[in-house]
Amino acid sequence: MVLLWPSLALAVGADPVGPVALDLALVLAAALLAGHCATRLGQSAVLGELLVGVVVAQLDLPWVARLRDSASIDMLGRLGALLLLFEVGLQSTVGAMLQVGRQALVVAAVGVAVPFALGWVVAHQLLPAGPNTGAVALFLGATLTATSVGITVRVFQDLASLQRIEAKIILGAAVVDDVLGLILLAVVVAVISSPDGLQLGSVGWIVAKALLFLVFSLVVGVWATPKLFQWATRLRHPSTLLAVGLALCFLLSWAADWAGLAPIVGAFAAGLVLEDVHSAPYRARGELGLEQLVRPLTSLLVPVFFVQLGLRTDLAALGHPGALGLGLALVAAAVIGKQACAGVVWGTGPDGRQIDRWLVGLGMIPRGEVGLIFASVGAGLQVNGQPIVDAGAYAAVVLMVVVTTVLTPPLLKWRLGRSQAGPPPDAEPGAPIDCRSPD
Amino acid sequence: MVLLWPSLALAVGADPVGPVALDLALVLAAALLAGHCATRLGQSAVLGELLVGVVVAQLDLPWVARLRDSASIDMLGRLGALLLLFEVGLQSTVGAMLQVGRQALVVAAVGVAVPFALGWVVAHQLLPAGPNTGAVALFLGATLTATSVGITVRVFQDLASLQRIEAKIILGAAVVDDVLGLILLAVVVAVISSPDGLQLGSVGWIVAKALLFLVFSLVVGVWATPKLFQWATRLRHPSTLLAVGLALCFLLSWAADWAGLAPIVGAFAAGLVLEDVHSAPYRARGELGLEQLVRPLTSLLVPVFFVQLGLRTDLAALGHPGALGLGLALVAAAVIGKQACAGVVWGTGPDGRQIDRWLVGLGMIPRGEVGLIFASVGAGLQVNGQPIVDAGAYAAVVLMVVVTTVLTPPLLKWRLGRSQAGPPPDAEPGAPIDCRSPD
Repeated sequence: MVLLWPSLALAVGADPVGPVALDLALVLAAALLAGHCATRLGQSAVLGELLVGVVVAQLDLPWVARLRDSASIDMLGRLGALLLLFEVGLQSTVGAMLQVGRQALVVAAVGVAVPFALGWVVAHQLLPAGPNTGAVALFLGATLTATSVGITVRVFQDLASLQRIEAKIILGAAVVDDVLGLILLAVVVAVISSPDGLQLGSVGWIVAKALLFLVFSLVVGVWATPKLFQWATRLRHPSTLLAVGLALCFLLSWAADWAGLAPIVGAFAAGLVLEDVHSAPYRARGELGLEQLVRPLTSLLVPVFFVQLGLRTDLAALGHPGALGLGLALVAAAVIGKQACAGVVWGTGPDGRQIDRWLVGLGMIPRGEVGLIFASVGAGLQVNGQPIVDAGAYAAVVLMVVVTTVLTPPLLKWRLGRSQAGPPPDAEPGAPIDCRSPD
Repeated sequence: MVLLWPSLALAVGADPVGPVALDLALVLAAALLAGHCATRLGQSAVLGELLVGVVVAQLDLPWVARLRDSASIDMLGRLGALLLLFEVGLQSTVGAMLQVGRQALVVAAVGVAVPFALGWVVAHQLLPAGPNTGAVALFLGATLTATSVGITVRVFQDLASLQRIEAKIILGAAVVDDVLGLILLAVVVAVISSPDGLQLGSVGWIVAKALLFLVFSLVVGVWATPKLFQWATRLRHPSTLLAVGLALCFLLSWAADWAGLAPIVGAFAAGLVLEDVHSAPYRARGELGLEQLVRPLTSLLVPVFFVQLGLRTDLAALGHPGALGLGLALVAAAVIGKQACAGVVWGTGPDGRQIDRWLVGLGMIPRGEVGLIFASVGAGLQVNGQPIVDAGAYAAVVLMVVVTTVLTPPLLKWRLGRSQAGPPPDAEPGAPIDCRSPD
């Protein structure tokens, strides 16, 4: 009898969706309240979502551990990150990105080179000299190059500033950055693990795949998708527009992953090639546009991504000897290194306003999950059977990722407020001023 | 060197979201095209989604197996089932359900009792006599009682007929059915495994939990949610309405699971207690209503559920000796048994139209995933270390589930067409008739 009840319990009391549903309910409620509090305190909602995760993670409750380690919640969060970048891509166009193309290239190149050099110097200064110091320094430099654009675009979105030219430069630079960071990581791994000589073939293939993906997705996307969406209007299905749009988003996400890029680069590219013209025939028959249709999906899934990012923050790692000092030095190198990007921003935006170069620099700061991926690669590196990166260096990298990620929303919010407070340069001097007394 | 590349590949070429994104792209595209074809052939779109899964499953390709066994896709499909029932619940109200409450109770009771009796008779007729025949007959009878309402509501939705009173009776009966089927399953398992006497305490606790959940969710939902939604209007968050609505949906889904009911019962209850009044303050400030916000979520996730349901159909099990005959007899018992429901439907709908009693009977036919859950419980039952249900009987149950699930959409579509073709009883005799010649 007793033996039989478990199988009944499995059937009638434990659909696997049960715990996931509870997790989603808790994440949604926590994200909503934390986002509201952050907004009330003048911050971006995403900072609240991150911090509520960090705080809850310290509670050491069983369900918190379950939530943090849930494969389903993890996957929902990753899909949320894809859809966030898809949504952001939808709000821009290929033309607008090409306008900032040269700036984005230069910003990305500087944003990779300077942090890499600073990280290398910091490591040589702070680490005890040893046979592997050179290798660790190369690796730490490489981890500082990543840019995780998710946080930055959420802040711009929260503050209704995604249409600013600075947002477009940052997004363009983040794509290039991803490609450059990938190449650098491949080269560093090759140098560390095979000091006799670079395997040019392997590295070349990685570069070729990444470039192939970018060219393919943009050229084919711009050329083929208008025909595809026009053809699909003939399908008798109430949600054709969303289904076709999401299929493209997921297909390019997978293709980016295949090419060795972050899947979010593919999702962004899919959003970028889709313009208003794709939605037009559907809108004409009274349906919602693609942006409006994607918004409920991101409302559900994006908070899952950020709350879980907070939950996974391991504050305990900082207790490791030497980790705090090295970590703070890496934070400084990470922040200062990306501010070099500000030095190579020039010109004015389409509204005639001077581009806020510091806004671009600040927007490049967060390392987010890309930094953590780099760190996990480093943790797996071995020379002669010895791990190259010890627990202290790994904890320092985690600290750098966390601080840059949590620091960015308030910095961006402050800078955006400053930059929007000033009068726009094209304001007419004689414009009427609202001088009714407040009541 | 070679040892190192896998860790790099893990980091830069295999984000776990990659394959899931590809699966989603394929499922969305397949569901869209298959749904379109089914609609063109005069069928419901969901039949296309089911059949494309069945057909693709026979292809025996590696990625099909991966898609079928993917835990992530499975979870997304389960969330899709929740959201489908939530959406359906949103389109109805507690008041409307109470109007059909007595009918639904009677329909559910008949729809449990008659199929159970028929299944018991069929088993005794077709199975070779043996020490366990009585136990197998009890179990087969129990599997015939389940009603999986997902298919039926999709057909009604596809044909824009969810507001018909027959849909409300079926939905109400399905909720009661779930409770009754659960109790029956518990009793059958208790009888089979402990013939000395029923453990009344265990069964009583199961019943109490189920009733507790229903009363709690409806009473508290009707009383507390208007206050909650009104309070939430003060939150500064762009997607408050959707976040609060989904949190309630997921919370009640989990609570239903806790109470031993199917999670979709909780999702349906959540939708039921939410009425237009909850969305009104948000609509008043120009936001979309909850139904419109949930639609994109179901557009993404519901096809995943139905395509995977098709993928998991194991046609090969029918090769088992004796399975086909027993299976076809069970199909007949399942279909005929639920038609007994038609005999206890009476009266007219709010539009004065006679309720289509056969529509109710046909809508109760599909066993879907609930039947499969019952079958898996049976597969785990043992007496004296011997499994009670052999592979042949299990395959017969699977056949019954598949046939009732695939048969229902065309039957419902046919019946709805017939029932809508006749003139409504309240049509004015002198109403103008459109007699322009077609051109």
